[in-house]
Amino acid sequence: MKIIKPSVEILDEINGDDILKKIEKIGRVCYKSEDKITNESSRKFIGNIMKRGHESVIEHEKVSVRFTCDRGVSHEIVRHRIASYSQESTRYCNYSRDAFGKEITVIKPLFWEENSEEYKLWYKAMQHSEQAYQTLIQLGASPQEARSVLPNSLKTEIVVTMNLREWRHFFKLRTALNAHPQMREIACIALDKMKQEIPIIFDDIDENK
Amino acid sequence: MKIIKPSVEILDEINGDDILKKIEKIGRVCYKSEDKITNESSRKFIGNIMKRGHESVIEHEKVSVRFTCDRGVSHEIVRHRIASYSQESTRYCNYSRDAFGKEITVIKPLFWEENSEEYKLWYKAMQHSEQAYQTLIQLGASPQEARSVLPNSLKTEIVVTMNLREWRHFFKLRTALNAHPQMREIACIALDKMKQEIPIIFDDIDENK
Amino acid sequence: MKIIKPSVEILDEINGDDILKKIEKIGRVCYKSEDKITNESSRKFIGNIMKRGHESVIEHEKVSVRFTCDRGVSHEIVRHRIASYSQESTRYCNYSRDAFGKEITVIKPLFWEENSEEYKLWYKAMQHSEQAYQTLIQLGASPQEARSVLPNSLKTEIVVTMNLREWRHFFKLRTALNAHPQMREIACIALDKMKQEIPIIFDDIDENK
Amino acid sequence: MKIIKPSVEILDEINGDDILKKIEKIGRVCYKSEDKITNESSRKFIGNIMKRGHESVIEHEKVSVRFTCDRGVSHEIVRHRIASYSQESTRYCNYSRDAFGKEITVIKPLFWEENSEEYKLWYKAMQHSEQAYQTLIQLGASPQEARSVLPNSLKTEIVVTMNLREWRHFFKLRTALNAHPQMREIACIALDKMKQEIPIIFDDIDENK
Repeated sequence: MKIIKPSVEILDEINGDDILKKIEKIGRVCYKSEDKITNESSRKFIGNIMKRGHESVIEHEKVSVRFTCDRGVSHEIVRHRIASYSQESTRYCNYSRDAFGKEITVIKPLFWEENSEEYKLWYKAMQHSEQAYQTLIQLGASPQEARSVLPNSLKTEIVVTMNLREWRHFFKLRTALNAHPQMREIACIALDKMKQEIPIIFDDIDENK
Repeated sequence: MKIIKPSVEILDEINGDDILKKIEKIGRVCYKSEDKITNESSRKFIGNIMKRGHESVIEHEKVSVRFTCDRGVSHEIVRHRIASYSQESTRYCNYSRDAFGKEITVIKPLFWEENSEEYKLWYKAMQHSEQAYQTLIQLGASPQEARSVLPNSLKTEIVVTMNLREWRHFFKLRTALNAHPQMREIACIALDKMKQEIPIIFDDIDENK
Repeated sequence: MKIIKPSVEILDEINGDDILKKIEKIGRVCYKSEDKITNESSRKFIGNIMKRGHESVIEHEKVSVRFTCDRGVSHEIVRHRIASYSQESTRYCNYSRDAFGKEITVIKPLFWEENSEEYKLWYKAMQHSEQAYQTLIQLGASPQEARSVLPNSLKTEIVVTMNLREWRHFFKLRTALNAHPQMREIACIALDKMKQEIPIIFDDIDENK
Repeated sequence: MKIIKPSVEILDEINGDDILKKIEKIGRVCYKSEDKITNESSRKFIGNIMKRGHESVIEHEKVSVRFTCDRGVSHEIVRHRIASYSQESTRYCNYSRDAFGKEITVIKPLFWEENSEEYKLWYKAMQHSEQAYQTLIQLGASPQEARSVLPNSLKTEIVVTMNLREWRHFFKLRTALNAHPQMREIACIALDKMKQEIPIIFDDIDENK
């Protein structure tokens, strides 16, 4: 059994300047004001659009992100319907310990200290689950059957593609203080990364609300 | 711990005749051929539409269904994006055994006989999970933390609303022989129910493909 | 040529009480609090949900509406993507005056008085368009070719099905004072009708903003 | 009045190889088979996926296209709901001939020869519409009012962003022989361009069906 922390990887090379220029070019189609484009105009144009809440034009750009999180969190993520997903499959992946050394990986819960009673209990539960899974596979069960005993904490990888407008919506919901702590954990990491790349699109989202 | 079978409940009162009449009325708006509506015309009109694959008109009617299944299956269900969902929340529901007698409910896997080695292993794993969950709650963990140890087999309830076109798409994928057996189990029940109510819409879907 | 006013017809029989009861039943699945349902509980439950902005549960109910409006307005309507549409087709409908007395119908613009200069100009333009269309058809053009000369004011019928959450979104945008006056005209009629049937869902939307 | 031909511009720089590599990387997350990636593996991996109809993974890449077409065609385009749009607005653009030389632009119908009776009729109808529009503006009408008299042939620009899976769906419907000829005209141009850039994704779509 491996225990890892959740993580976030942006899969697109984001060039903030290029994205803003493309968005401006597209936005100005609506008003046929392309003649107003200069080398510096995009920032102001998009700033104005965002202030007035006209977010439809930022839908034309997308970002793909790989989240490594647990299956409780991924079940929440995929409730966002304006998105595309590819997720590690518990039907096709076989986590049984074999010649290739495959084993179960679980996500470390951020809310329990490693030497706490809760953590030890959780750790033991993970071991029980893994053992049950491995034995079921040895008895001839298929991975899609044996998964029945796998826990919520099972690590999963999921690639999420959303357009920029939908990412904003995602971050507003999922970095909020009342979001699930493990959901918030990765959502905040992703938001920070996007703020670095395209600040004008994400800077107004406050993750401490 | 309770062990139950998965189940399916249609939440709308479906009147097949009314639905077909409404669909015909709407479909004829496209061609302005409302003058051809008679008491018997809907069946033929819709039959023709379905044969030619013009399914957009059946989107105007919807059916809401409550599935009681495990969380592995519900994670697959919510990947359908043209739908609305309300699901029992592992963040807000507390399954700890208390004065109200709440306890964990799990879904019986259809692929293991009750006296098989696999079933006994699974059963023990469920008990371990439940015990870990209960102890975590007693230690002061919140349900949204303690859920980490809950297994894939945990029973969940999810209400799914789709329009008729999307239900057709859902059934084609989810009753197929290569679908997950537990997904297929409830999808077949739901399809049978809908075939009874509105055969003309669903009869061509063969669940043994 | 016929000149008519735009209009709105609700195609579902809406029973507000039934809808609220169904929504409560579904909403309580999330919290497994079905035991709190009484004959009077739905109004309060849904009122609370709406106040907190938890609108996903009202997605489970839908309303189908037939709008009779012009093609400029329908082009705006179909930009709403979480909806189903069936629209009178300019490809398949033949508006040429023939034995069956078919002719072009146009929507009266609300912003011009009948004896104003603008109205007379518009009226003449409509006549020119109709004449061009009829002559093209007589020359052997198909309706989908001859439609090239038809004006924005051409009457169209479009059936729109949205869930209640999306109708709320539609009304907020389309009854706003800065919406197109002809879009606003029919959106306000539809909102008034829905406020009558299910006030608790729509009452907070102010069409004078 | 200007008369132009419809046109298609791809707004993204498409690097077919990069796109295939990204799609392979994402697709292999599902099976955790990233170790099988080589410099040449993407073409085979994606070819297999396409053959089996597992198109969800190609949703992670998108293409933005600017169509210049008439408003009849754009009304059809926006019926595709899994897409993002920015369209030249007849509410905000003023086409009246003024100091800036603005004037109405219309799309030349492909189905009429320039010296045919039909073309001349259409041409005259365009002139009538333009004249009515200009006079209305001079009388003080706003563009969003005066647009009432504008014809279906009015040129519009619309930027369409779809993911690759949805583009495939779009092309299958819109390049088909029974599509509207003007819709087909631009859809075929766009499909040809995409076949050049990412043949493996689009090559099986036959525009003569």
